[in-house]
Amino acid sequence: MIEVEVKVRALPDTLEKIISLGAIFAGTENHRDLYFNSPWRDFRKSDEALRIRIKEEGARLTYKGPKLDQETKTRKELTARIDSPEEMAEVLGALGFVLSAEVRKRRTKYALGDVTFALDEVEELGSFIEVEISGQADFEEQRRRVLSLLEKLGPGESIRSSYLELLEEKARKESAIANDYPP
Amino acid sequence: MIEVEVKVRALPDTLEKIISLGAIFAGTENHRDLYFNSPWRDFRKSDEALRIRIKEEGARLTYKGPKLDQETKTRKELTARIDSPEEMAEVLGALGFVLSAEVRKRRTKYALGDVTFALDEVEELGSFIEVEISGQADFEEQRRRVLSLLEKLGPGESIRSSYLELLEEKARKESAIANDYPP
Repeated sequence: MIEVEVKVRALPDTLEKIISLGAIFAGTENHRDLYFNSPWRDFRKSDEALRIRIKEEGARLTYKGPKLDQETKTRKELTARIDSPEEMAEVLGALGFVLSAEVRKRRTKYALGDVTFALDEVEELGSFIEVEISGQADFEEQRRRVLSLLEKLGPGESIRSSYLELLEEKARKESAIANDYPP
Repeated sequence: MIEVEVKVRALPDTLEKIISLGAIFAGTENHRDLYFNSPWRDFRKSDEALRIRIKEEGARLTYKGPKLDQETKTRKELTARIDSPEEMAEVLGALGFVLSAEVRKRRTKYALGDVTFALDEVEELGSFIEVEISGQADFEEQRRRVLSLLEKLGPGESIRSSYLELLEEKARKESAIANDYPP
């Protein structure tokens, strides 16, 4: 499946704008995401991701391939439901994969036809909106629709970094500041 | 979990002997096992295995570490239940793992306390008996018990090769014979 997706920082009026487009509240979820890296190819460099997502309805193992274009976060995504995230984490560990980060967030979803708006409140990062169309339809057409919806939400610039990458960037900056001002 | 396990060729009187030990019929299962190899370390050389087992009650992803002794098939085993073997096979493929073989068998199980006797009828290989104790108890003690039960079953020699390895060996021999006698 190809998932066409863009992300922007949420502004104070973003939710209002989503609702004024006609989108309907579609539930909230708490996500605990465990990211693994590979010892054979660094997923930060290859732009891949291997993740166990734990939410109320169950857990999934997801592989994300490299991004397919320059404007959106579109990528190949493969996912498998799993019964026990702990068991799967153990198997991944035995195969050599290394737990590299954990991302926690609260996601509130709004649906507009085949489009999902997700308001994500991410621990340590703040609030974001993801606009997503999933399906088998024409990729270019979906990409245009997602970017046009994004424009209607305001001036925010599309963020192609994942929450994982944003957290890593934040940690790097904080560590640089700490090194600039030793106690 | 440590799984202490030995395997022998089943003889015509093996089942009779198992029942005379007091073991009770505990069900039959059909196994379809998909084995994957790693492009980074050859599991045939490292004595590891990565397997998706599909049976009637559901599917599991299992990692097996190298064997821990010279007489049994004892090894570290980690397993995770999965909802869809097809989805998991796709994720493994995207991560670089390669489907290397498929093993199909019919397993009839007999229980004697914490011991399981499995009569395996393996496609292309024939019939085998596996004697297994699973649990947290003392490894050496379990090993002695398994080997002593094996002795009671008859003169068969313990086979430490997996069905996967036996199938690979058979394929190598057949290919060697074919090369010796060209048409």
